[in-house]
Amino acid sequence: MIGAVALITTLVDSGVDVCFMNPGTSEMHFVQSLDTVPKMRAVLALFEGVATGAADGYARIAGKPAAVLLHLGPGLGNGLANLHNARRAHSPLVCVVGAHATYHERFDPPLQSDIHTIARNASGWVHTSGHPREIGADAALAVAAASGNGGQIATLVLPADVSWGDGAQPAAPWGVLRAVPVADRVIDHAVEVASAASCVLLLGGAALSEAGLRAASRIAAATGTRVLAEGFPARMERGAGVAGVTRVAYLAEAVEPQLAGATDLLLAGAPAPAAFFAYPGRADDLVPDGCATHVLAAPGQDVVAALEALADRVASRIEPELAAPSLPASPSGRLDARSLAAAIAITLPEHAILVDEAVTASFPLPDATAGAARHSLLTLTGGAIGQGLPVATGAAVAAPDRQVVCVQADGSAMYTIQALWTQAREQLNVTTVLINNASYAILRLELDRVGAAGPGDRARDMLDLGRPELDFATLARGMGVDAVRVTTASALVAELRRAVEEPGPHLIEAMLVPG
Amino acid sequence: MIGAVALITTLVDSGVDVCFMNPGTSEMHFVQSLDTVPKMRAVLALFEGVATGAADGYARIAGKPAAVLLHLGPGLGNGLANLHNARRAHSPLVCVVGAHATYHERFDPPLQSDIHTIARNASGWVHTSGHPREIGADAALAVAAASGNGGQIATLVLPADVSWGDGAQPAAPWGVLRAVPVADRVIDHAVEVASAASCVLLLGGAALSEAGLRAASRIAAATGTRVLAEGFPARMERGAGVAGVTRVAYLAEAVEPQLAGATDLLLAGAPAPAAFFAYPGRADDLVPDGCATHVLAAPGQDVVAALEALADRVASRIEPELAAPSLPASPSGRLDARSLAAAIAITLPEHAILVDEAVTASFPLPDATAGAARHSLLTLTGGAIGQGLPVATGAAVAAPDRQVVCVQADGSAMYTIQALWTQAREQLNVTTVLINNASYAILRLELDRVGAAGPGDRARDMLDLGRPELDFATLARGMGVDAVRVTTASALVAELRRAVEEPGPHLIEAMLVPG
Repeated sequence: MIGAVALITTLVDSGVDVCFMNPGTSEMHFVQSLDTVPKMRAVLALFEGVATGAADGYARIAGKPAAVLLHLGPGLGNGLANLHNARRAHSPLVCVVGAHATYHERFDPPLQSDIHTIARNASGWVHTSGHPREIGADAALAVAAASGNGGQIATLVLPADVSWGDGAQPAAPWGVLRAVPVADRVIDHAVEVASAASCVLLLGGAALSEAGLRAASRIAAATGTRVLAEGFPARMERGAGVAGVTRVAYLAEAVEPQLAGATDLLLAGAPAPAAFFAYPGRADDLVPDGCATHVLAAPGQDVVAALEALADRVASRIEPELAAPSLPASPSGRLDARSLAAAIAITLPEHAILVDEAVTASFPLPDATAGAARHSLLTLTGGAIGQGLPVATGAAVAAPDRQVVCVQADGSAMYTIQALWTQAREQLNVTTVLINNASYAILRLELDRVGAAGPGDRARDMLDLGRPELDFATLARGMGVDAVRVTTASALVAELRRAVEEPGPHLIEAMLVPG
Repeated sequence: MIGAVALITTLVDSGVDVCFMNPGTSEMHFVQSLDTVPKMRAVLALFEGVATGAADGYARIAGKPAAVLLHLGPGLGNGLANLHNARRAHSPLVCVVGAHATYHERFDPPLQSDIHTIARNASGWVHTSGHPREIGADAALAVAAASGNGGQIATLVLPADVSWGDGAQPAAPWGVLRAVPVADRVIDHAVEVASAASCVLLLGGAALSEAGLRAASRIAAATGTRVLAEGFPARMERGAGVAGVTRVAYLAEAVEPQLAGATDLLLAGAPAPAAFFAYPGRADDLVPDGCATHVLAAPGQDVVAALEALADRVASRIEPELAAPSLPASPSGRLDARSLAAAIAITLPEHAILVDEAVTASFPLPDATAGAARHSLLTLTGGAIGQGLPVATGAAVAAPDRQVVCVQADGSAMYTIQALWTQAREQLNVTTVLINNASYAILRLELDRVGAAGPGDRARDMLDLGRPELDFATLARGMGVDAVRVTTASALVAELRRAVEEPGPHLIEAMLVPG
């Protein structure tokens, strides 16, 4: 058996049966072996950032890793921004990077580079497989490693001669590394903290699952603890029937009132709040002065069990407060961030997956969708834009029976616009609302905030996407995706209803009036 | 003066007056300072790989570095594949990577990552600026470093507080690091080698300039030495009036006859030939058995002076053999790689810049264009596809008075398709011939070559770009570029003539019949 067959067989045996890929010559034996191991589903991407972002979205919904297959150092580089986001999402992911044959590296051929330098940036585990007889064990270890630390990227470098070499064998799965339990004395301490004068419980990671949110809601009801969610969750359950929670705001000045008066901050799977960026003369540590910070569970620990244990101690007979169904009025008239959010809220199907990379246009979205149909929210965890379309793609592969709605800003969309082609190829149920405001609007905001007094014409020009205007409906059609452009809120509602009814991908370009 | 103003002023004073950029929040003071230092031309890209590829193309034509401005680790990652190609091209390039404020890193905010790990993959010089009072000197040093080793990438990490901090001053330019002269005894030795029974002189880098080619042609005429060029030159002068030379072939079996019988190989700015990829059971070292290898000049050495010195010793009264004007017949009928090459050859304007990322479709191009109008050829130096459109963009910025013709394969185009928008925004004189064969044709070839006997349906499916069909004319229009689709050779000729006459960018989608 050649190495590639042993590798793919081991992955499949370990539960990794989807591979997002963008292969080259050094990966041809892996590609060839797909016919030998038909249980591995191969999903082709036209750009590596689509493959890595899709694997991230897949992991967030499937709760297990996908594999990605990339072509040497440059391919890994192209995939790195979305690996960065996946790292911040604690998504488990097995990244297979093809490399030159071991005996060929000495010629320093054109595609040769030091793959490990790049891999180290985002991976929790990096290993180069050295021989076909080792590749099975290496693959099993990579899958196990991906489940470590609460979910991380395991990068396996696969030299071409290890891939094509004979004498390989699949290895038995190592199993998943379980989350580390939280010690009883930590729960004891949390009981005291939650009963403090003014405690804020900050949820992140798995704490934003339905069970975690229920437990947090009971704690709040019993103790008066305020509950907040981290600003950019990998996945958060929301909508009618789920215990609702407000997220930490993006702008530091909006976080201040959220935490005002807190004497104790209890971290449940989330880091302490800090500014996304530093700005001259503004606060960057957002924990109020004099507020004590306590850790209930760190990433990699069993945060849901810890929250439930805490709830059982302080709120044994108290029920959680679940969000009641509540929809905004059907919007009409001009399209702005508010009417767009309302259109999404009222058309969101039950058990949808909502991917939010709307950036500035997303500010009204959480309020509008708080009582919408129950859904899973996926956000931009690592701040590296260009994640929305790929994550939506992978989420749809993971859950073919759920509708994915991707709210996507224009500037960010252009980083990984190639994802639309994969959505068409795989006929995925993704509806993209592409928000066209012809600018890097977030940077206009930031240019003001960084203290740049009165930006000049040349600076403003660098934030302008309107010269020439991007036509996203046309771009989508060029990649085989059904697309339409709308300019009113009622047209957006109508097109959303049509899109979520029809199978396959759709793109609705929403021409936004500055709000 | 704030750090960003000192940085940009120093770059401009050092001759770096174009910056290809894709900035984010941490780069806003750099953006703001563009109005203070109007001599810096800022060119916006929608994706970092466009910015880095454009800087590579700029350097190949301008002979000096451009700057690129990228947003933290993920931005550098997105730009890495074309930095890899620039490294292989020995293009000088100053890469400015914005980073979090120095005091903000401790919070490990979402966009934080170890930038140096990524930078090391492609950079010959990496430095993080530590204080506004140092940024001027750091910038001057970065420009000088970029000219080292025959041209390399100098990466300057710019923390936000160094960028916005006061007390900065521009620094005086350090000047360019000159190429290292070749010692007389090396020339003496080369005189003997060139007179050997069967010598092959292999040219690379600056040896493929007009002067280098003239000298090599004289040496060949006087001594009978065979002359070859490296397979993937960064820039090579070609066409009528230039001394012609054949490039080392891509496929190892085609290199064999090129070097057959050679007793001595004299390397002039090129590495010894090796296979691009290793294949099971095929040769990877392409230097014939028993052939001795000698280095006339390594990258970073003055290879043109060395060739001229050698020519003056062995061919003092001998003139070079210059290519006579010679064009293929005007093609008609179906579009295949051969008729496409003929169409390009007969329409190529005088002093055009020809960018070749046609991959499989480029095989007939060198023969067809050998006697065409004089032009500069830029090729895919590092094998990381997605370089053609960006390199064409940067070349057009460097030479607004020259027509750029970019012959671009479909699969490769999709990696950095966003370059078309920058071409439209800057109204660059680039004509792209987009070769649509609806497949990764090179991988079909490679799948056969790696010994994969009878690839199955699932393997073949991973090389198929036809489901759904990509419509590049539509994609180009969506980004504001005039575009047309052609299906015959005569239509391609007519559209090429129109496109090179009209100002601004054009895209001609050539629907290729498998040849």
